[in-house]
Amino acid sequence: MKFSIGLDFGTNSVRCLIVRTDGEGEVSSAVVNYPSGDQGILLSSSDHHLARQSPADYLDSLTKATVDAIATAKESYPGFDPADVIGIGIDTTGSSPLPVDEKNQALSSYSKWKDNLAAQCWLWKDHTSYEEAARITEIASKERPQYVAKCGNTYSSEWWWSKIWHCLKVAPEVFDAAYSWVEIADWIPSQLAGVKDPKEIKRGVCAAGHKAFYAEEWGGLPDKEFLSMLDPKIADLRDRLYSKAYDASEVAGTLSEEWAERLGLPAGIPLAMGEFDVHYGAIGCGVEEGTLVKVIGTSTCDCAVVKASGDVPDVPGICGIVRGSILPGYFGVEAGQSAVGDLFKWWVEGVCKGNDSTHVELTEEAAKLAPGQSGLLALDWNNGNRTVLVDQRLTGLILGQTLHTSRAEIYRALIEATAFGARMILERISEYGIPVNRIVCAGGIAEKNSMLMQIYADITGREMLVSASSQSCALGAAIAAAVVAGEEKGGHADFDSAQKAMTGLKPDRYQPDPERHAQYNRLFALYKKVHDNFGGVEAVDLAPVMKELLDIKEGK
Amino acid sequence: MKFSIGLDFGTNSVRCLIVRTDGEGEVSSAVVNYPSGDQGILLSSSDHHLARQSPADYLDSLTKATVDAIATAKESYPGFDPADVIGIGIDTTGSSPLPVDEKNQALSSYSKWKDNLAAQCWLWKDHTSYEEAARITEIASKERPQYVAKCGNTYSSEWWWSKIWHCLKVAPEVFDAAYSWVEIADWIPSQLAGVKDPKEIKRGVCAAGHKAFYAEEWGGLPDKEFLSMLDPKIADLRDRLYSKAYDASEVAGTLSEEWAERLGLPAGIPLAMGEFDVHYGAIGCGVEEGTLVKVIGTSTCDCAVVKASGDVPDVPGICGIVRGSILPGYFGVEAGQSAVGDLFKWWVEGVCKGNDSTHVELTEEAAKLAPGQSGLLALDWNNGNRTVLVDQRLTGLILGQTLHTSRAEIYRALIEATAFGARMILERISEYGIPVNRIVCAGGIAEKNSMLMQIYADITGREMLVSASSQSCALGAAIAAAVVAGEEKGGHADFDSAQKAMTGLKPDRYQPDPERHAQYNRLFALYKKVHDNFGGVEAVDLAPVMKELLDIKEGK
Repeated sequence: MKFSIGLDFGTNSVRCLIVRTDGEGEVSSAVVNYPSGDQGILLSSSDHHLARQSPADYLDSLTKATVDAIATAKESYPGFDPADVIGIGIDTTGSSPLPVDEKNQALSSYSKWKDNLAAQCWLWKDHTSYEEAARITEIASKERPQYVAKCGNTYSSEWWWSKIWHCLKVAPEVFDAAYSWVEIADWIPSQLAGVKDPKEIKRGVCAAGHKAFYAEEWGGLPDKEFLSMLDPKIADLRDRLYSKAYDASEVAGTLSEEWAERLGLPAGIPLAMGEFDVHYGAIGCGVEEGTLVKVIGTSTCDCAVVKASGDVPDVPGICGIVRGSILPGYFGVEAGQSAVGDLFKWWVEGVCKGNDSTHVELTEEAAKLAPGQSGLLALDWNNGNRTVLVDQRLTGLILGQTLHTSRAEIYRALIEATAFGARMILERISEYGIPVNRIVCAGGIAEKNSMLMQIYADITGREMLVSASSQSCALGAAIAAAVVAGEEKGGHADFDSAQKAMTGLKPDRYQPDPERHAQYNRLFALYKKVHDNFGGVEAVDLAPVMKELLDIKEGK
Repeated sequence: MKFSIGLDFGTNSVRCLIVRTDGEGEVSSAVVNYPSGDQGILLSSSDHHLARQSPADYLDSLTKATVDAIATAKESYPGFDPADVIGIGIDTTGSSPLPVDEKNQALSSYSKWKDNLAAQCWLWKDHTSYEEAARITEIASKERPQYVAKCGNTYSSEWWWSKIWHCLKVAPEVFDAAYSWVEIADWIPSQLAGVKDPKEIKRGVCAAGHKAFYAEEWGGLPDKEFLSMLDPKIADLRDRLYSKAYDASEVAGTLSEEWAERLGLPAGIPLAMGEFDVHYGAIGCGVEEGTLVKVIGTSTCDCAVVKASGDVPDVPGICGIVRGSILPGYFGVEAGQSAVGDLFKWWVEGVCKGNDSTHVELTEEAAKLAPGQSGLLALDWNNGNRTVLVDQRLTGLILGQTLHTSRAEIYRALIEATAFGARMILERISEYGIPVNRIVCAGGIAEKNSMLMQIYADITGREMLVSASSQSCALGAAIAAAVVAGEEKGGHADFDSAQKAMTGLKPDRYQPDPERHAQYNRLFALYKKVHDNFGGVEAVDLAPVMKELLDIKEGK
């Protein structure tokens, strides 16, 4: 009986999951909330685009979570011995870069920078650099169209270069003090491995390819000529970054003596490459060619893989198609929606001033409604649109309100809006030849909200499956750990065999209802009109929208 | 010291106001809520378009209100004597028709029809007949374009023929049992005058001209050939309606012995012609050529007058331009917005589940916001659009939401939406040559909500004045009573002298702030884009809207 560990760094907390590598069960897990800021996020009262995180929180919280999980396993899982842990995998949010010094220390670990927001980790959901993102899109579209072609023709304010460039503009003293910048997906394994020089950090192709314009075909990171069009200092920084990025078949390092002692684990066990949460989540959900994995949480990430031997088209509006970014040997395809759970939370807590029981009440009431019964139609853009419009400067919209519209009707309309957004993504990737034979969902919302799952099935016309593990991201990281540990140590020879042994599906399956699907097709046609006009696709005539919504509402 | 009485029949209650005809003050008033239904309105659980009212409620409530007001005046106003009341004026909602029998009794006063919703008064806000309204617009546009030209080219579901035709379709037994139909504006004076034959009711040109296609130039009501295109039974009904309608220079009748005794007033005093509440409200606000009166309540009505000697253009989208409908000797011009106070009430009570103190809280918070600071833009169409689109089948819209949007921001956006709607009306009537030199507002919202009034001033760029009387509609009715009583009885020779004596302005004046007005001009341009596309004016490109809202929000 051997074990591997997955460490899953989410937006508000870190989870440590211990699993059996033979797939016979999850042994124990522990979650620790990041202590700083508002639910772990450092905010600014003057700029709601800003979202940072304390790098020290990551290290403190992972220690606590791992020690807790091991203690629980020792107590409650007969036969568990920390000496039988054969590897650790790490997944994180991203693009979440932080500035480090020459010793690979977070700048913020020094008292000089401790309270400087620019010296912290720039969390994925930080959108302060939307102007830089627009400028990068503009420059790259003209000068290096091949760069933006791989990320849906639009570079995002959530991503690496936008953030680093914005730091240079608004906090040049931080930029100048930083020797290098590192994604937390790469930085955390480098800390556990005791890497003391940023140049020795093994960088993952997942972050590099999806967020930093990295591709082997043009020699790694963007060339210096291009970067100097942003700023000569960015071009200089390139030399202090990396020239090669690796997929999950590689080892990021081995657990250092110091960290082994701190965590109570064997020194020298392999650390899998850090990947983004949803990428390891996709692996934990059993992704393979033909499977679309949807991790539905505060936001939604969609992942698919396509064999790297074939030819993969550029798909407009898809965040990235990167060789090796999810599974070694495959192109990883990523798409997403910027606000899903966050959108419902905004409505229930932000506007209705409710709490968890309000979520339950509104869900009960909303579940009684038939498609179109409310007469409402909404766009799910309160946090911009990641796919297929790739535009952070879009905002939410609700229409069809009367003087009788209820909060539960709006709640359902917002859920439907996210499902319409999901259908846009599904249709776009299918249209460009990426096969989707089955859809596997994971994340808290997929597990808990059966109304939402049924609406997704009814709107997309597809069966919705749910991953067996409630901790797919951490499980995927643990699977990667089992693979890098290898078969002879009690792990696995490759991802295929590891996924077969260690992943599965829940018995609940959500089948689309043909009648509701037909009704939703009418609503989706209206959604598309509004989407296309406000989203800048086409200035279509919206005069029929409100009237058709009323017709549908009235059963015509 | 002589007195006149104004009876103001609102949507939920009736008010009796006793005033001095010399303008030296309001003597007393009393309000009585209609006892039936939900706040006086009979609703249907299966059709939210339906809104009816019990005719018996009108008579019972007016009796109680008048008796109460007289009792209060006797107690607290030295020198008041009911024997010195020289006339009664009546204003009501409209178009609110009810079916009556050959004796001018409301059908619903018979036990057979008592509980039949179709036999009640069809309240102005009943929109069950939207299909009939669309059909009437279609037929009239083709066959009698002169009819629809006077009502903005669109006949409304709120109006006379739509409602009567809908009754014939859905409740033919009621239609067949009705000898005639009467607006409550005409029916209540006829009851007080003891009129026992519907043919003897003096009908007001206000309801006839604005709601029933009445005009002297084509011989009164629509011809029978036209009405038979609706239904031959409607054509037959024409013979049991009326051939002439009168303006407010006429007397509707004199108070009957029976009612004089019931109310404690002198028998035989004149009853002014019934007019719609806002029309008498305009008179109570001192309307004259060049003045726009806005009565801002659950909905808003805009009134202006233009000398009948001149030529008046047809103004597209304006509900009606009718000779004599407000002041004798002038064309009355009417426009309006279907949801104003109702819209704020929907948000605060319907969605936020708040109460009066929530209104206060949200107002305080919303007052702190600068124009554009929320990034929101809304359409005020939750109850359709009366002017300038004349389309009941339009619905509400809010856009610009982020994950940080607050309920107070939405509250303010809804207020701004009604102000943008008000500006559309102002611009339309100005464009067609109806002069607006000053704007006088009345109604509960104009008096109580100074934030709203300032926003209206800032958005329109016009000074907003407020009528001195809190009861402008009842005051206007009392002025009409003083005019029909005549100078020799202690009243007035004409409306001009009566208005000079009996109306005035509050000292508070709302001046537009040039900076806020400039900012609102940017927002209004965006409002117009959304208005025009969803309203069917033009399929404009909406892609810049969300981005410009964010620019304004960010001070760009």
